Amino acid sequence: MATILQARTDAASQDLTAEMTAIGLAAREAAHVLSTASAETKRRALQAAAAAIRQAAPALLEANRRDVASATQNGVEGAMLDRLVLNEKRIEAMARGIDEVTALPDPVGRILADWTRPNGLRIQRVSVPLGVIGIIYESRPNVTADAGSLCLKSGNAAILRGGSESFHSSTAITECLRRGLRAAGLPEAAIQLVPTRERAAVGIMLRMSEHIDVIVPRGGRSLIERVQNESRIPVLAHLEGICHVYVDAAADLAKTRAVVLNAKMRSTGVCGAAETLLVDRAIAAQLLPTILDDLKQAGCALRGDAEARALDAAVEPASEADWTTEYLDAVLAVRIVEGVAGAVAHINHYGSHHTDSIMTEDQATAERFLAEVDSAIVIHNASTQFADGGEFGMGAEIGIATGRLHARGPVGAEQLTTYKYLVRGTGQVRP
Amino acid sequence: MATILQARTDAASQDLTAEMTAIGLAAREAAHVLSTASAETKRRALQAAAAAIRQAAPALLEANRRDVASATQNGVEGAMLDRLVLNEKRIEAMARGIDEVTALPDPVGRILADWTRPNGLRIQRVSVPLGVIGIIYESRPNVTADAGSLCLKSGNAAILRGGSESFHSSTAITECLRRGLRAAGLPEAAIQLVPTRERAAVGIMLRMSEHIDVIVPRGGRSLIERVQNESRIPVLAHLEGICHVYVDAAADLAKTRAVVLNAKMRSTGVCGAAETLLVDRAIAAQLLPTILDDLKQAGCALRGDAEARALDAAVEPASEADWTTEYLDAVLAVRIVEGVAGAVAHINHYGSHHTDSIMTEDQATAERFLAEVDSAIVIHNASTQFADGGEFGMGAEIGIATGRLHARGPVGAEQLTTYKYLVRGTGQVRP
Repeated sequence: MATILQARTDAASQDLTAEMTAIGLAAREAAHVLSTASAETKRRALQAAAAAIRQAAPALLEANRRDVASATQNGVEGAMLDRLVLNEKRIEAMARGIDEVTALPDPVGRILADWTRPNGLRIQRVSVPLGVIGIIYESRPNVTADAGSLCLKSGNAAILRGGSESFHSSTAITECLRRGLRAAGLPEAAIQLVPTRERAAVGIMLRMSEHIDVIVPRGGRSLIERVQNESRIPVLAHLEGICHVYVDAAADLAKTRAVVLNAKMRSTGVCGAAETLLVDRAIAAQLLPTILDDLKQAGCALRGDAEARALDAAVEPASEADWTTEYLDAVLAVRIVEGVAGAVAHINHYGSHHTDSIMTEDQATAERFLAEVDSAIVIHNASTQFADGGEFGMGAEIGIATGRLHARGPVGAEQLTTYKYLVRGTGQVRP
Repeated sequence: MATILQARTDAASQDLTAEMTAIGLAAREAAHVLSTASAETKRRALQAAAAAIRQAAPALLEANRRDVASATQNGVEGAMLDRLVLNEKRIEAMARGIDEVTALPDPVGRILADWTRPNGLRIQRVSVPLGVIGIIYESRPNVTADAGSLCLKSGNAAILRGGSESFHSSTAITECLRRGLRAAGLPEAAIQLVPTRERAAVGIMLRMSEHIDVIVPRGGRSLIERVQNESRIPVLAHLEGICHVYVDAAADLAKTRAVVLNAKMRSTGVCGAAETLLVDRAIAAQLLPTILDDLKQAGCALRGDAEARALDAAVEPASEADWTTEYLDAVLAVRIVEGVAGAVAHINHYGSHHTDSIMTEDQATAERFLAEVDSAIVIHNASTQFADGGEFGMGAEIGIATGRLHARGPVGAEQLTTYKYLVRGTGQVRP
C-alpha cells in the first residue's frame, strides 16, 4: 500500500516537473520573440490588455468571488482577506496601472555607451531585456497585472506564480494580459501563470536556472526568506526594510518633527516606514521630547535605550532585538548615538541596506552620512517613505532590491533590462 | 580510533571556518573604509604597490623558485608549469599592469543619473563599490596582482584564493600590494590572500554570503563549474566561449578569409577564439573551399556536417557534441546553415552567449544578426578575438561574464561597482 502511494506521488511529482519545464521552454521561446519586439508592438499589447481588463470586469469579479468564498471557508480574514478582494474600483486601478506602464519610455534599445576604437571598431553598449523573469507572490490578484505588464514593457517573458487563494482571480487577469499579447501578434507564452496551486511548483521554479534568468519574490518575510534560501537563480528582492531616521545636532526642529512623524506613521506597513529613530546625544534633551510627543499623540508605541527612557517615561525598554526588528506597525525604536559617526555605525551594523535618512542643516554632516551609509537609498532632510519607484518618478516598480548586484533600490522597467555589446567593424582582425 | 580522527578533523574544520570568518569580517570592515577612500588615495596605494613589486623582484623570484620546485616534484609540467613561472620580464609586466590600472578613471562616485522631482527632491544615482569580492583562481601568480589592483581601484576589498602550487609566489605578491595599502594609509585587510592551501577553504568561501558580495572565478572549465554549482554568492564568470563566425551570402571574401583565420588561429587558447564556422548555404560552394584551405594551411583540423564535407574531403564528420565543444585548440567545427535565420537559431541554441560574429556587406542582415543573437558581445565584420576588456578600451579586466545580471561581457573596474541613490530634500514628507 505504502509502495503504491509512493509510486503515485513520484509520478505526480514527475508530471509537475514536466509541466514546469514545458512552461520554461515556452517562456524562453517567447522571450526571444519579445526581445526584438518594437516599442510600438509592446505598447499595442499593453493597451489591449488594459482594455481587456476593463471589459472583463464582470468575469474578474466572478472569479474573485470564488476565491474569496473558499478563502473565507479556509479561515482567511482581516488584512489577508482584504488584499484578496477585487471590486470595480480595484479593477479600474489595475487597468490604470497598465496605462501608466504603457506610457513609460521603452527601456530596451537604449544606447548606454558608444565609442570608437583607434582601429575603427565602433562599440555600443545597448540595453536588452533580461530574458525570463519568475515572479512569486502572495494572494494579491493585482500583482498579476502589475508584474505581467512591467515584464512585457521591458521585453521579458514572465512566469507568474501567485498565492493559491487568488488562483481564479489571477487566472482571469492573466487571460486578459494574454488577450493583449494576441492582439499585438505576440506569443501568449510571454505571460504564463503556473496553472496549479501545488506548493511544490515554487520549489521547482527556484531550480529552473536554465529557463528563468531572475526571480522576483513579492510578499512577506517568510516568502522572501524561503525564496532567497532555496533559489538557484539570482533573486531581486529585499528581505526587510529596517529604515532609520537620524536626527543630527544641527537638525531643524520643525522639519524634523514633520519628517519623523511621516516616516513612521504615514503608513506603518510599507517597507520604507522608519523603524528606528537615532538621535544625536548633543541635541537629544532639547529635541527628543517634542518629537516623541508627536509620535505618542499619533498612537505610536516607543521602545528605547536608557538615555531615551530618561527623557520620556512613556518609552519602554528596548532589547537588542528591537534594533533589527521591522515592526511594520505603530512602534518605533529610539536610540541616542554619538553624532553622525555613531549613527552611521548603528545603521551599517543593524540596518537592512534599504533606506535611511538624516535630518541636519549642516551640509558637511549630510554629505558624510550620504557617503558612509551603505544602503540602497540614503536621504537628506526628507521622509524614508519616499522609498518607492513611483515617488522616484520611475513609474511602476516590481519591488525594491537591497542586494548589491544588478539593481539596488526600486526595480522598475529599466532595472529589468541588461545590456549587450554591439561591435561594428570593416574587416578588423586582432594583431 | 576512528572517533579520535573524526574529532580531530572536526576541530581542524572548525579552525578553518573560524579563520575564514575572521578574514571575511576584516574584509567587510576594510571595504567600508575603501568605499569612501578618495581617488587620489587609491592611486597612491596602487603606485606604491607597483613600486613594491619592482623592488621586491628578487624576493618574488625566490618565492616562485620554491613553488616551481615543489610543483615539478608533484609532476606539474608543460603549459601548467609555464603559467606558474615568474621571471624578470613577467614581474615587470605585472607592475606595468598595475600602472595601467592606476591610470584608469576612478569608477566610484560617477553620477549615473540626476533628476529633480516636482516636490523638489533631487535624486542622484551614484556608483559605489560592490563591497567584498572573492577571487578564486588557478596557479597563475600574476592574477594576484591583476585582481588585487582592480579591486583596489574600484574601492572593493578582495579575498584572493590562488591555486595551491602558486602559494609562495602569491603570498609574496600580496605582501607587495599590502605595502601599497599601508603607504596610502589604507587598511591592509583590503587585500587578503587565504593563508592556506587547504581545498576546503574554497567551499567555505563560496558559502560566506554575509562577508563576500560577489565571487569571480578565473581558470579552466572545472574550476568555473565547481564555483557556479557550489556558490551561494552571485558569480561573475563565463563557463566557456563557444564563439561563432557566420559567413553570410553577402560576405566579402577577402575580409572573411582574414577574419575567420584570425578568429580561429590567432590564439586558439583564449575564450574569444572561434569554435564553430557557420556558412550560408547560398554561398557555401563558392566561398568555403578557399576559407578552409587557409585554415588547413595554418594547421587547423576541421569537423563538419555532410554538406561541408561534400565541399572539402579533409573535413572529418562532426557529431552533435562538436557544436557545443570549446576546443581551445586548432580545431574548427563547420556547418552549413540556411541564411542569417539559420545562423541565429544555431548560435542561440548551441552557443554560450559569449561572442559571435557575422561577415556580411548587407547592412540589414548585419543589424538583424546583432539584434537577434543573444550573446554578451555581437560583432559585425571583425574577429571574435576582440572579445577582451583591453581591446574594448576598458583597461584591465577581471574576466568576461556571460550571465545576464549585473555585468555582461568584459568585467573591468566599472563593472566592479554598483550604485546607490542619494536623495536631497528640504524637509519633504510623503503625502
